[in-house]
Order: sequence, then structure tokens, then C-alpha cells
Amino acid sequence: MIIVMNNGATEEQIETVVAKIRSFDLDANVSRGTERTVIGAIGNERKLSPEMFDTLSGVEYSMHIVKQYKIVSREWHRDNSIINVGDVAIGGDQVQVIGGPCSVETQEQMDSAAQHVSDAGCRLMRGGAFKPRTSPYTFQGNGEEGLKMFRKAADKHNLRIVTELMDARMLDTFLEYDVDVIQIGTRSMQNFELLKEVGRINKPVILKRGMSATVSEWLMAAEYIAAGGNHNIIFCERGIRTFETAYRNVMDVTCIPVLKKETHLPVIVDPSHAGGKAWMVPALARAAVAAGADGLLVETHPNPCEAWCDADQALNPEEFRDLMGSLQGIAAVIGRSL
Amino acid sequence: MIIVMNNGATEEQIETVVAKIRSFDLDANVSRGTERTVIGAIGNERKLSPEMFDTLSGVEYSMHIVKQYKIVSREWHRDNSIINVGDVAIGGDQVQVIGGPCSVETQEQMDSAAQHVSDAGCRLMRGGAFKPRTSPYTFQGNGEEGLKMFRKAADKHNLRIVTELMDARMLDTFLEYDVDVIQIGTRSMQNFELLKEVGRINKPVILKRGMSATVSEWLMAAEYIAAGGNHNIIFCERGIRTFETAYRNVMDVTCIPVLKKETHLPVIVDPSHAGGKAWMVPALARAAVAAGADGLLVETHPNPCEAWCDADQALNPEEFRDLMGSLQGIAAVIGRSL
Amino acid sequence: MIIVMNNGATEEQIETVVAKIRSFDLDANVSRGTERTVIGAIGNERKLSPEMFDTLSGVEYSMHIVKQYKIVSREWHRDNSIINVGDVAIGGDQVQVIGGPCSVETQEQMDSAAQHVSDAGCRLMRGGAFKPRTSPYTFQGNGEEGLKMFRKAADKHNLRIVTELMDARMLDTFLEYDVDVIQIGTRSMQNFELLKEVGRINKPVILKRGMSATVSEWLMAAEYIAAGGNHNIIFCERGIRTFETAYRNVMDVTCIPVLKKETHLPVIVDPSHAGGKAWMVPALARAAVAAGADGLLVETHPNPCEAWCDADQALNPEEFRDLMGSLQGIAAVIGRSL
Amino acid sequence: MIIVMNNGATEEQIETVVAKIRSFDLDANVSRGTERTVIGAIGNERKLSPEMFDTLSGVEYSMHIVKQYKIVSREWHRDNSIINVGDVAIGGDQVQVIGGPCSVETQEQMDSAAQHVSDAGCRLMRGGAFKPRTSPYTFQGNGEEGLKMFRKAADKHNLRIVTELMDARMLDTFLEYDVDVIQIGTRSMQNFELLKEVGRINKPVILKRGMSATVSEWLMAAEYIAAGGNHNIIFCERGIRTFETAYRNVMDVTCIPVLKKETHLPVIVDPSHAGGKAWMVPALARAAVAAGADGLLVETHPNPCEAWCDADQALNPEEFRDLMGSLQGIAAVIGRSL
Repeated sequence: MIIVMNNGATEEQIETVVAKIRSFDLDANVSRGTERTVIGAIGNERKLSPEMFDTLSGVEYSMHIVKQYKIVSREWHRDNSIINVGDVAIGGDQVQVIGGPCSVETQEQMDSAAQHVSDAGCRLMRGGAFKPRTSPYTFQGNGEEGLKMFRKAADKHNLRIVTELMDARMLDTFLEYDVDVIQIGTRSMQNFELLKEVGRINKPVILKRGMSATVSEWLMAAEYIAAGGNHNIIFCERGIRTFETAYRNVMDVTCIPVLKKETHLPVIVDPSHAGGKAWMVPALARAAVAAGADGLLVETHPNPCEAWCDADQALNPEEFRDLMGSLQGIAAVIGRSL
Repeated sequence: MIIVMNNGATEEQIETVVAKIRSFDLDANVSRGTERTVIGAIGNERKLSPEMFDTLSGVEYSMHIVKQYKIVSREWHRDNSIINVGDVAIGGDQVQVIGGPCSVETQEQMDSAAQHVSDAGCRLMRGGAFKPRTSPYTFQGNGEEGLKMFRKAADKHNLRIVTELMDARMLDTFLEYDVDVIQIGTRSMQNFELLKEVGRINKPVILKRGMSATVSEWLMAAEYIAAGGNHNIIFCERGIRTFETAYRNVMDVTCIPVLKKETHLPVIVDPSHAGGKAWMVPALARAAVAAGADGLLVETHPNPCEAWCDADQALNPEEFRDLMGSLQGIAAVIGRSL
Repeated sequence: MIIVMNNGATEEQIETVVAKIRSFDLDANVSRGTERTVIGAIGNERKLSPEMFDTLSGVEYSMHIVKQYKIVSREWHRDNSIINVGDVAIGGDQVQVIGGPCSVETQEQMDSAAQHVSDAGCRLMRGGAFKPRTSPYTFQGNGEEGLKMFRKAADKHNLRIVTELMDARMLDTFLEYDVDVIQIGTRSMQNFELLKEVGRINKPVILKRGMSATVSEWLMAAEYIAAGGNHNIIFCERGIRTFETAYRNVMDVTCIPVLKKETHLPVIVDPSHAGGKAWMVPALARAAVAAGADGLLVETHPNPCEAWCDADQALNPEEFRDLMGSLQGIAAVIGRSL
Repeated sequence: MIIVMNNGATEEQIETVVAKIRSFDLDANVSRGTERTVIGAIGNERKLSPEMFDTLSGVEYSMHIVKQYKIVSREWHRDNSIINVGDVAIGGDQVQVIGGPCSVETQEQMDSAAQHVSDAGCRLMRGGAFKPRTSPYTFQGNGEEGLKMFRKAADKHNLRIVTELMDARMLDTFLEYDVDVIQIGTRSMQNFELLKEVGRINKPVILKRGMSATVSEWLMAAEYIAAGGNHNIIFCERGIRTFETAYRNVMDVTCIPVLKKETHLPVIVDPSHAGGKAWMVPALARAAVAAGADGLLVETHPNPCEAWCDADQALNPEEFRDLMGSLQGIAAVIGRSL
């Protein structure tokens, strides 16, 4: 941590800062510049926080030098971590496309979806039984009944299932239906109590980025899960909120190389929620894989026009199959497979 | 709802849209312009959603004409709603300043804080027992023990207490300690399961704005609470996230007149979290009251330098008292009291 | 400037950084921490830039410790600067409200506007002769003819005039009509060639904030003007662009106390462009004055419904007069006059 | 255009709106819904603007139905437009990579850069002679001397040159040195006077997106150029400003498919400015081509460590050559060449 003193800071003020650093068993390095004195804290600076110093008189500002996340950082673990979902690996050479509908509607719909997702070559399937909806007056998901339908449809095709957990009180039910990958949605990224709960189990967790979360906050949210003992974490970029109104969100491809540098954990992308319209999905999906994503979450529905939610962002089976073809080509160019 | 057709939309495509509208028992008005045909749905358009139409061929886009929130809207209830917290009214002529520390630390700290908050003229007090923290490695609040200390300190000075609920599983404990006003924090604004829970009780709820939530999403979040039967909702603006890095958040004063127009419920402001530094708080607090806020949440601590969290944003007792003085002046100018 | 080395940086890499610092005649302070080595450059760090070091191997990142602006900073000039426009002072105890229409339309309109602006107690008047419009197909202003009408109307009431310069090639014409205060619009804040031109004259300049400019970029833009020799600069906040769509821009009140701390120059606010609707203006104007603004730019039109541009954001003469009354009250509370 | 009336709008208020529409020689369609009356204006709605109606009593809001841009829209010209720069086509099957240094430094540097850009297979070269810099105290470019060096170096390798114009007064000089493609920088996107000037010539223009410009504003800025008669416009996405601070800007890949739908003109991307760090460029460049970009602007320097500006974002010759290889692979997957 460095503490930058005001232009006219007195010796006494400098001494107070130094004493505070030492009171935490750290050393202090005082560098007297022409315009500012800068004090560095030497030792485990994670014990300190800027607000401890910013209130002292004579201090202009202070800041951490090292990152606040630890277990999830690449410094802690140099090699890529591979997360195994049964016999399917996320984070290795193979790019995993997780296809499926926005929400679990009926057993017929799920059976048909599982069939076409499996035919297209996917090994994992997505689908929501509990839906976070902006309005209390819209369809909120089929709940436990939905989990049951999903499990049944997926098992027939040997697909692992990915579904969202919104409430810690439902965790036991998720474990009962043996949900293979638990998804923490964008609105729950900083639901710290929920993060602590999934940190206590050993199921893989997809942690979606909050729609306005910085990369640093996102890594810290993952650290909550990791600190509990569960290191099976997969980051999922799903579009960020900006000033632009011509599309729902901006898919942040830049975060892909940045996360690959900062963390050893896999990074996947959800181009369906990012763009919000089915016709944008192929371009965005290709961009994500070209930028180095370890996988994708793609919405596809047997009959998009009749989907109960987000109808306009699901690919139909044919569009989905075509997309898988071009993704295979892109993956090959950068030395990966699909 | 209006549906705008593409430039070259065919008669058949127009007919399909009209038929879909009628299938929901609404009427359709077809307006053929020189460049576009626009179809209006006449009747209770809340049954419809844009995604139902955006997937039909020939449709360019569609949009709601009426707002999706209802109970919280001023159309539903023309007069200002006043929320009573015991004998203290929020939303009336009196502007309520809710002072207190960021977190409940010790009984001594709370006793001292309650004393100076009460001396300054406040009728409500704030303080966090459960703290949402970005890092899992920082102080997470004193929990139930904190509620106990808070209740005790406040009762001595006849102060009503405001504190944050982060987890539905703690609601019974909050009721046990008779928390007077339950605060839903910025990170929980779209924790829909939590909103549903506080919708089932009849305690006043302060609903903080998500740090990147639109006014419309915020009103819809309140609608979740209201739809459950609890109409005692108070909106709280606490700064929004923007591109600016010179300060933590931007206090959005514009939302004050806008909310007062859209909803009948009270609107308060938290200038402490918005700015993030104690020296900014007086200017921001004055601005909020001048813009029409019904109250403020202000952090004040008996000894800010030793606060366990957010030390740099708390006012000391003297600064707090001074601020109360100037707020009284501003309130008087616009015909209110403090 | 400090340079933070990677965790595993070698002695040789550290030496290279130190040598680079010394090659600019600055000293280096090397602080070896447990996780990072931090190198401080001691001397006039404005000669250095982060990109000089970020390319060197072993460097994690580097950053300036002192601000890059100088003449406009409060460190350079401790007291408030007062900008004199004839006998009217901006930045002193008196808050200046600059009223007038969005654009100069006709001589009659300007005569009537000047009359009501003067009657309401203003000493300066605004009006656009050259209009930056998003669409090439809309009214672009009356140009030189507009300046003439404006000058004539204002002189009759002894009002100083404020109008926008969009093109360096028009500067001579502005001087010819003796424009009292030159406004640099939001879209021109980083038109560096234009800034250099107004830096060469000695007329007061209102520098509007770019709608997505950081406070730091804004101060640097002012430094361009100041570096040319013209220190008569007035900052004008006019709303920033955010994710919110319920109103055009978010008026950033937080920047007022921040600027007053960082610079000695006056800060005014334009609540009309910030909100975009006339009914929001009184609340926003009061908030700005309460937060410490030195003045306001307010749109008012003899007959808003017939205004040629931004009709929906202009106050009518009566609304304007009422607003002036409440602003007087607010100013008095914080020890100022109107 | 549609005008939505308030819930309680009177017949008289509706009549006033209808009369106003008719006064512009348009027809009105009145649709009386259960909660709102909606009035549609039928005819050339570009004559109208929302602010004309929003000031009338009884009006809730009004909005355009058709887009305000015309010449640049795909409705006006269904096929892709190909912009010819001599014998090089932008917007056809071939993806054009425009390589070169941030700024023109010396003749030796430019000769060397031109050599390696040409060797890598590029047909166009970039380089700045006039540099828009945030600080007035940093290198502002070599000016006319720079254009001369650039022209000379490029001619030796038959490369077309792309360089930024910041000031209308320099246009003649640009024509004198026969600059092949004029770049309008991000800070000039809404410098309307400059847009009008380049609209009067027939040189190809690269119009960079303002760093916080919406797609709609960007298209309107292009319309300024097109309205003057110059239809040789190339859009260039260069990263947008968001709340994220871990990287300079967020490269907006979503705008690529959206622009390809909205306009017939080519779209290129500048991954160097978007990310701000050389190590991010390959991932971003691949993503842009995979998403359908017609070309790229990539910074490359013979010796990045010694570059006079933006040293940390330039690729060295070897990295640049490698990138060209993988881009060729990506282009082939989507049926294009490099």
C-alpha cells in the first residue's frame, strides 16, 4: 500500500502515518519527492485498507499495490485450472458450448431441446427453472417441477445440466436433483450470502458477471466462493451496461484476455443475453471464441416464436447447428477444438 | 403497445400481428404511414410483451406505451403517501435525517452515537449489523449481537432504527429485535426472493437503488414488494456508477423530481455513500434537500478515524450538527421543516 | 511517478527502470516489499509518462502521483479566482444566473427575452447563434446575423452576452461583436485547436464539460486554454451521460465540491441541458446552488412552445422569475447573494 | 412520429395535437386505448421533432418511428457499398488491415515501419502527424513535416496513407500531400463544422466513433458528411467508455453486426486504442474480424519501447506478422480473405 501525502504535509503528519503502518507490524518506506512525500507499507498489505489512512490529516490518498483477490489469482496458481463436470472438461483445449432454452417450459419442449442440443454436438445443456424477472407479473419459472423435467430430458442424452440458483434456501433441492453446474446469475454476483453457500459445496459454479461489475469486483466475488473451499469456479461474461441503447448490453470481449491473465480459472461467454437478439448471436459467439473464451452459453429453442421468455434471443435448431460449424473453424485457427 | 413494421412488410405479416393481438382479447389499430405501418394494441397491454412480436417476420420493433409498474405509480395513487414509523412520518412536510455509523461496532460506540444523533435532532438512526463487503477477508458485521446493541442504544434515546437485511433467512431475527425500518441494500435491489419476503410483512422498507439500476427497474423492484401487500416503501438514491473515477459514485439528484412525478412514495438520499468522502457530504446533503428529497441517510460516527468501516465518509458529531443547521435553512426555503 | 514491478521482477529489470528514471535527471527510490518492488521517481515527474515504463519488461504498471494540470490547480493558486465580465464578477459571493433562450431566433424574440431576463435580476444573458445539432437537417442557428440581434437586444438592457463558438474561423467575428463570454460547448471540450485559439485572447471562456468527460480530462482541457495565457476560465457542468434513459443526462452535483477543491476557478451549472425538461429545472437549479455552484446557465424563452429548438426545456418568464426567488433563499442559507 | 397522451388528456388537447400535425401537411391517426390515447403522424415525419409536441399540454411523450439518418442507411441503399482507395477496396470480401505507428516521428522510423507493414501484407498504412493529446504539455505531432515524411515512406512501398485531420484549416495541406484516407478522430466525431468540410471533398473518410457516442449519433455524424455529397465513409469502432477501469476502453463488437444491418457502408475496428495494451491486441483483432469487421487499424512500430506516444499499445514487427497469420485463418472461416 502506498500513502501519498499532501503537498504541505508536516513531519508530524508523516510520522503519524508511519506509526499507523508499524502498528500493524508492517515496515514503512518514506520517499520524499519534490512535490509529494510518498509512504510505502512493506509487508502483508492486505491487513490495511485505504480508508484507514485517508482520514488522517495530511494524507491526499492511499491505495493498494497488490490485488485483493488471492486464491483465484494467477499468481497463486500459474497454470490454467480445468474444471471437470463429470467427464467433460471446461478450461482445456476443447471449447464447450452449453446450449438450451431460456426457461424450462414443458417436458416435450425439454425433450426436443435436449435432442437438438445433443445432435449439434454439445455436452452440457442450459435451462432455467427459477427465473429472475424484472416484473413480478411475468412468468417466474416452473421451479422444482422444472428441475425434474430438465434432469429427465438431459439424462436421456447424457447431457450435464446448468441451471440458475437464486436463493440459498433452494440449494438442497438443487443437490437433490444433482444439478451438475450451478449458475449464479448477474443480479446475484454480489449476493454474498449465496456465494458463501455455494462456497461450501464442491459442485462447479458458473459465476456470471454483474451487469455493471468491474473485473476486480467480479474476481472478489469469486474469491468469496473460493474462500469457502470450492475452487470449481467458471467466470461468465454476459454483456455489460453502458450508455448505448441500440442493443441491450455490450458484450465485453476485452475482459476475456484480461481475465485469462489475472486468473487461472476458465472464462465463458453468454452472447445471447449480451446482444438480446438472435440475429446478433452468431457474430458475437464467433468473436468470443476468437478472443479466447473457454466456452459459450447459447440460447436455442425448438421453436423460438413460442418460447415463454426471451423469445427473440433464442436460435432455432438449424441456426444453432450452423453456428456450431463456424465455431469449429474459429477454434481450429487458434489451436483448439469444439 | 405499438408494433412498428418493417418498411416492406406484407399484408400477410400485418395480419399475423393483428391476429396475435386479438388472440389476447385486445383490439388492434392499424395506421399505414408513408414509410412504416404502425399497429397499436388496444386494451390491457400488460398481458403482452415486446418479445412476443419481435420474433414475427416483418416486425421492426415493438414497445409498451404504458409503464409496467402499477401499485407504486402516481397514476394509481395521486396523493403523496406518508409512511409512518411509529409516530415519525416520512414523506410529509418534515424532512427526516437518519444519522448513524456505517456499522455497529461496540455498545459504547452505539450509545455515544445514539446520543449525538439524538442531540442533533434526528428521530431515526442508522447502523449496519450485517455488512455486504466486496472482500471476504474484511469485517462482515457483528450480526445478531449488533442488532441487540443497536436496539438497546436507540431505545435509550427514543430513536427508531434502520438496518440492512441481506438474507431472507434473517428476517425472523429482524422481527424479533423489532427493527423499525428494514433496509434493502444496493446489491439486493434485484434480489427478487428477498423482495418477495419483505413484501409479506408490514414493516416500512427502504429500497436502495441498485448502483446501476435505471429508475424503471427500481420502480419495478418496489412493485415486487408492493405486489406482496406491503406498500410501506421508501426509495433511497445512493449514487450511481458512471465512467467518472474522481469520486466513488455520482449522486443522481435528477432522479428526485422524476421519482416524485412517477410515484406517490417517499424518496430519500444517502449522500455519504454517493460521494464516499466526508468532506463532500454537506454539499451533497444540501443539494438533495434542495431538490426535494423527503429525507437523508447520513453517516456520522463518534470518532470517524477509528470507525471499523468506511471511516473516510463519516461526519464527526460537530460536522453533523453543523450540517443539520444548514439543512434546516434549505428546508425552510422550499416550505418544509427538519 | 511510481512504477510497480511484477512479483518475480529481476534485479536487472529493476536496474533498467532506475536507469530510465535517471536518464530524465530524476532520482529513484526503490522500495522492496514482500510481494512487489515499488520504484518512485523523485523530481519533476511531469517529464515522464506511464507508457514509457509499461513497455519495459518486469513492470506491472506505473502511475503519476501528482496531477497533470498545473495553472488551473488550486495548488498553483490557493485563493478563489474571480472572473470579471465588465463589472460583473463570477466566482465571488454573488451567484450569477445567466438566463436566455436556446437559440437566437428573431430580433423581437431577443428583445422580449432580454427584457424578462433583465427584469428577473440577471446581469448576463445566454443565446446561441451557432448551434451544434445532432442532425444536419435541423436548424443550425442564425449565425452572424444572430450575433448582431443578440448584441442589440442585450445592450438595451445592459446585459453581458454569452454565446457558443464552434469553429476557430469564427473567432474574429465574435471579437467584432464584442461577445463578452465565449462558450465552448460540450462537444468541443477536447477540440484542442479551438482551445488553443481561445487561449490566445483575454475574453472570459465558459468551458462546458464534455458529456462523458472525467473531471481530470476537463481540468486538462482548461489547462490548454490557460497554457496559452488566458486564465479567465469558468467551468460549466451540464449533465453527464450514464446508463439511465428516463432523462437526457444526469446533472453531476458531486463535481461541484470536487472542482472547488481541485481548482481556484469558478464553477457554474446548466440545469436545463442536464435534465432536458423544463419541469425538472427548478429542482436541479436549487440543488446546484445548494451544492456551491458559482452560477447557473438557465434556458428561458418568452414563449417556450414556439421556440425553434429545445422547446421543452425552456422556462417561461413567470417560471423563471419564481425560480430566481427560491434561489435567492438558498444562496442566503449558505452565505451568498444572487 | 407517435404522440402518447396523458391518462386524463381532454378532447381539446387531442385536437390541438392533431391540428399541429396537420399544420405540417401530415395526416393524423388517433388510437384511443383503455389507458392512453396514441396519435400517429402520417407522412414525412422528419419535418417534426418530439420537442414540438412535448410542450403541449396533455402530452406524455412523443417519439420518432423512423430513423433520422437517410443517405447512410441501408434502407436508402440495400447493397454493401465498397469504398475504393485507389485500387484497394474497403467493404468487399477482402479484409483490410491498416498498420502503422501511432505518430510520425522520423523519416527513418517511417521508412522502417512502411517496410514491415508492407512485408506483412498490408495495402494501407496509418500514422499521425497531428496528434490530439489530453495534455498541452506532451508531444503534439510533427505537423506538415510529418505528412511529408509519411507520404515519402509510403510511396516507396506503394502503400495508401491514412492520417487524422483535426482542424478544417489544415484540409488544403492534406489535399496537397494527397492523403488517401482522411481520419476523423474520436474527439471530432461531433465537430460538425469539420464534418461539413470533409463532406465537400471526395476523399474517403474514416469516421471514428466518439468514445461515448451512441450508434445513432455516429450514423447522424456520418449523415453530415454524406449530406455534403461525400459518400465515401468508413465507420471505425475504437472502444467505448464504460465504468470499467481495468482497461482503457471496451471494444464494442456488438456494434459490428448492428451497423452492418443499419448501414451499407464499411465498418472497421481499431483494437489498439480499444484495449490500450499491446498484449490485448491479438485477441481483440481476431474477435473483430470474427464478428464481421471489414478491416482493422492496428498500431505497430519498428521498436515499440522507443515510440514517442502510446508505446505500450504498439505491436512489434514480429507480433504484427504473427497476428496477420491468424487473421487470415479467421477471415477464411467466414468466407473472406485478407
